Amino acid sequence: MTEGTYDAYLRAHRDAHLEELKTFLRFPSVSTDSAHTGDVAACAEHLAELARKVGFEHVELWPTKGHPVVYGDWLHADGAPTVVVYGHYDVQPADPLDLWQTPPFDPQIRDGQLYARGASDDKGPTFMHLKAFEALLSTTGGLPVNVKLFLEGEEEIGSAHLTECLETHLDQLRGDLLVISDTTMLGPDQPSICYGLRGLAALQVDVQGANRDLHSGLYGGAAPNAVHALVELLATLHDSEGRVTVPGFYDDVDVLTTEEAAAYRDLHFDEAELMAEIGVTELVGEPEHPAIERLWTRPTLEINGIYGGFQGEGTKTVIPAEAHAKITCRLVPHQTGRGIQQLLAQHLETHAPKGVQVSVQLADAGEPYVTPFDHPAIQLAADAYTHAYGKRAVFTRMGGSIPVVETFERMLHVPVVLMGFGLNTENFHAPNEHFALDNFDKGMRTLCYYWMHLPEALSGEPV
Amino acid sequence: MTEGTYDAYLRAHRDAHLEELKTFLRFPSVSTDSAHTGDVAACAEHLAELARKVGFEHVELWPTKGHPVVYGDWLHADGAPTVVVYGHYDVQPADPLDLWQTPPFDPQIRDGQLYARGASDDKGPTFMHLKAFEALLSTTGGLPVNVKLFLEGEEEIGSAHLTECLETHLDQLRGDLLVISDTTMLGPDQPSICYGLRGLAALQVDVQGANRDLHSGLYGGAAPNAVHALVELLATLHDSEGRVTVPGFYDDVDVLTTEEAAAYRDLHFDEAELMAEIGVTELVGEPEHPAIERLWTRPTLEINGIYGGFQGEGTKTVIPAEAHAKITCRLVPHQTGRGIQQLLAQHLETHAPKGVQVSVQLADAGEPYVTPFDHPAIQLAADAYTHAYGKRAVFTRMGGSIPVVETFERMLHVPVVLMGFGLNTENFHAPNEHFALDNFDKGMRTLCYYWMHLPEALSGEPV
Repeated sequence: MTEGTYDAYLRAHRDAHLEELKTFLRFPSVSTDSAHTGDVAACAEHLAELARKVGFEHVELWPTKGHPVVYGDWLHADGAPTVVVYGHYDVQPADPLDLWQTPPFDPQIRDGQLYARGASDDKGPTFMHLKAFEALLSTTGGLPVNVKLFLEGEEEIGSAHLTECLETHLDQLRGDLLVISDTTMLGPDQPSICYGLRGLAALQVDVQGANRDLHSGLYGGAAPNAVHALVELLATLHDSEGRVTVPGFYDDVDVLTTEEAAAYRDLHFDEAELMAEIGVTELVGEPEHPAIERLWTRPTLEINGIYGGFQGEGTKTVIPAEAHAKITCRLVPHQTGRGIQQLLAQHLETHAPKGVQVSVQLADAGEPYVTPFDHPAIQLAADAYTHAYGKRAVFTRMGGSIPVVETFERMLHVPVVLMGFGLNTENFHAPNEHFALDNFDKGMRTLCYYWMHLPEALSGEPV
Repeated sequence: MTEGTYDAYLRAHRDAHLEELKTFLRFPSVSTDSAHTGDVAACAEHLAELARKVGFEHVELWPTKGHPVVYGDWLHADGAPTVVVYGHYDVQPADPLDLWQTPPFDPQIRDGQLYARGASDDKGPTFMHLKAFEALLSTTGGLPVNVKLFLEGEEEIGSAHLTECLETHLDQLRGDLLVISDTTMLGPDQPSICYGLRGLAALQVDVQGANRDLHSGLYGGAAPNAVHALVELLATLHDSEGRVTVPGFYDDVDVLTTEEAAAYRDLHFDEAELMAEIGVTELVGEPEHPAIERLWTRPTLEINGIYGGFQGEGTKTVIPAEAHAKITCRLVPHQTGRGIQQLLAQHLETHAPKGVQVSVQLADAGEPYVTPFDHPAIQLAADAYTHAYGKRAVFTRMGGSIPVVETFERMLHVPVVLMGFGLNTENFHAPNEHFALDNFDKGMRTLCYYWMHLPEALSGEPV
């Protein structure tokens, strides 16, 4: 077949595909919120049905102790490589709702962008894989590779039950390669392939002062204030220039090689453009590292949320009895999620201010990942972008975490190719998440090209 | 008349009075929350009707730019003193609702306590004044003093429009004495009269980082985090031992006289009992002052609430764009509300952390108050408690703020008598507020005795 064949199919079915994608996006599959457990389950069933309609076989939901995995396969390309395609159908919470221009689960297209929670992360790219396979199947009656779909429902909560699920289904998931589209491109005109991701270590810290909220007039001056204590405690986590001050936090961090540092300089990362995009006049973080290194190769510790005491309109003269903070760290080789959680918990507990109880709840943990990018499957991916975008992909690292990458690599021992189609500016994890339809179109052409040429790339045979 | 007369009346009508008080408590008259504006207005109308039924004349609502004042008078005691009686019918917010054993606006009696928001602060005591007057009017056909009721609806929001209202009605409010029942007794068996109150200075601090919440993987390490900045900023407000570190904060604070310090020592304040009551193992605050001084005579700075970023279940890997904190200071002579607000605002704005915008909204302010307690009207009040409680009241100061006290004294130039019937343990400003019915009964007998004997005390004449 020629490139023109699938391309014509994708053009002819574009409107229908967008309507199907909108339907997929309408499920509020927020994995972290138990109020949405039913929505996550319904979304999984819907996704399974989408896969069946494409032509996948053995489509089923693999239950976990949390949300299910959608599995399906097409295994009729005798002698060709077998690829596992990973995506996730769960999404981040949508709050604060009042900052969305249109409701998060009512997808709408404006100015060439599809707005909805999950449009970019990761329902859009997951859907593109299905439709790229559909284009090949519909126009040729088959696929050039054997495919196993593994579509997860717990990515946004640290893939809590992934390891267990992989252990259970390890034999069914054997293959030559894992392809994931859950990363971003360097810019709208600069495709890129990520070869390194940061890990994650999450926890919550809870401070308990008095046995109830107290009147600040009657008790103020003697009673412990849980918010004061939390503030005092959290202030010990960074120095004034933005370095993390938890003892041992940086001990296992790899020093950047001279080659990588040089490669990053060659990307001419524009700090002023970043500041303009996010609306600030200064960036923060370890001053001895340029921003691009801080974003891709340095660990971080972020307070993701804080709450305690009165939050209503006006004044309430209360001494709060409780205060809470949510913290996540982004990790780099060779930090470990559990190790960093332990360091943090120990630091927080030993620095408990006077008069209060401090307790720490450990949450998600995922390991950092860096892979050699000279593998032919990864090099071919860069060429596939050239075909659709007219520009070859560059190789980058990324600040985000996809715990599944490290887990899959460790358990399946296959190379992982991160082909992303989202953009940093698309507000995933924030209000008004959107996805550029230009990348929806070009991305599916990139994928079709990739699957068509993968057998020859992996065989080492000429075309 | 004899004491037995009104006492018999109060006993005979006790059940009916409690039912009437419950009705009064059912109005959710939360003055700080604009969603409750209608409830505050309805509560004012209801209170006016209660006053009319007692026998007060010229009962009307005095409008303000906020919530109305309920006014009424009884002025037929020719030649006798004129007293202004102050109370307030607005209440604190009831949240967190889930910590209430029974709903805050569904009053219930358990174990001799009346549970409801406002039971103790200050609907209960306000209601007691009405019923004490009713007992005297019903049994004698008149009152021994002339009375002007001034029942406010904005005490819990710093009496925002009190000064304006007093200016408008200054002539109508002329009198010889102001009596307020909005303070607490030292203990259930130890009546006390407060002669000093702390002032209040309230503000909100808002931190703005990026123009939206950001993905912590993609932006973490470079983007400012509003919660980090707020924590860093708030941590500059106290030193590690609990002293306020805002420059100039203590400059105008009076040094305690040797006599007052000795009088406080004689009260044998039990710090262990306070710790047990509020469920902590340590108290906090300026180590060079004993707790009783910190509570009554030293200023404080409390963070009453903090919020920013993700507060839901689970993990959200977000860099918060906004964070907020609510702060109130308790003030002592000769600090001023506006002066302390300015010091704080300046400190917060000049310590704005890198990469964020800090802004400060000034809110309520009220001045501290201390009065000489050798006035015969105050000494008689101590005797009135002896009559009902069998124990004379001691003279104390208090940590709370009643801005009205300082304002009334400044504008009307009359002594202010603070006769309290609540207890520190009654959870006002907190879930499960309640009021001891024992003090409901004894308090009304104290008031009746007080009004009957006030003319002779102020005339200097023998009985």
